[in-house]
Amino acid sequence: MSRWKPDARRRLQDAALALYAERGFADTTAAAVAERAGLTERTFFRYFADKRDVLFGNEDQLREVFVGAVAASPAALTPLAATAAGLRALAVELQPRQDDQLRRARIIAAHPELRERELAKLASWSSALRETLGERGVGADSAALAGEVALAVFRVAFRRWTTQGADAELDELVQAALDELVGFVGRPPVGAPVEPAPPPR
Amino acid sequence: MSRWKPDARRRLQDAALALYAERGFADTTAAAVAERAGLTERTFFRYFADKRDVLFGNEDQLREVFVGAVAASPAALTPLAATAAGLRALAVELQPRQDDQLRRARIIAAHPELRERELAKLASWSSALRETLGERGVGADSAALAGEVALAVFRVAFRRWTTQGADAELDELVQAALDELVGFVGRPPVGAPVEPAPPPR
Repeated sequence: MSRWKPDARRRLQDAALALYAERGFADTTAAAVAERAGLTERTFFRYFADKRDVLFGNEDQLREVFVGAVAASPAALTPLAATAAGLRALAVELQPRQDDQLRRARIIAAHPELRERELAKLASWSSALRETLGERGVGADSAALAGEVALAVFRVAFRRWTTQGADAELDELVQAALDELVGFVGRPPVGAPVEPAPPPR
Repeated sequence: MSRWKPDARRRLQDAALALYAERGFADTTAAAVAERAGLTERTFFRYFADKRDVLFGNEDQLREVFVGAVAASPAALTPLAATAAGLRALAVELQPRQDDQLRRARIIAAHPELRERELAKLASWSSALRETLGERGVGADSAALAGEVALAVFRVAFRRWTTQGADAELDELVQAALDELVGFVGRPPVGAPVEPAPPPR
């Protein structure tokens, strides 16, 4: 067994999802995950703090995809349109991993301590969006509200995605949920002037 | 000690909040709560399943205040306006209990198992709103989105209420958060025709 494998991280994540689904999260050890991945336990702990951590290994990267797309969207976009760009970038990133995401969602739903961790993850995304909107000139209170609402929209779309089977496209479901949000809150007048965003600082 | 007290339930709730704040939730027993309330342990268990349950004793009543106000609002109101009526009714109900709500929020924030229970409560409110909007003719997907978004708005307002001190008015904070939601998503045209709600069934 070589001591360094370029894909070790991903192999450990795949092995963990497979074993948690087969044997249950509680009955799987970090050592068993490493063995399934053809790696040593020591390698496991080089990448992850514990067996829970494996399920959240892409958290920072996904948050950057999300708020990176918001930050990179044209300054003239409304806060909602910029947020939508972020949510759709996240959707595009997750789409190829639908099977993994579904298995992951089932494991998390079954374990209170994992649900807590998942909520903390979503709260960190919400908070990152709040900061990014703040940098685009959105007031603190409005940005906080937007962060919560954006995550509510994403949760709804994500839940549909993991229950609608293999043909479901997450970015379409995100767009549909955003359309429902606009429908619920009220559609702006066609051609209404959009308040210009402040210049980037 | 009389065997039946008309205000036993409320006294047990008050005693529980006081003791959980003083000694911590983990170090308080149901017996101690009963003793502080001047009641027997047997009386405690006539009202509550366990010491956690005391913190959620008003859950069903508050849910009814919320969705009852939505259901009772004029059929011509938009789903958002009907939802706003529900959230504001909830705010008016909670306002006189600000101190209790603040203490309760702190205790819950400190205990993962209580946070889980609180989330389940909020999910049941969201689900009740979904059903109530469904009865008003809102499609299932839109109603589900509205349920999540309404609770996001309420959480934001509630958090501000429990951090802004004694002068904060929850219904004003709810209205401010709703205004921020409208600002984030886009204001409908002034005088735009409102799609009529179907007649009540």
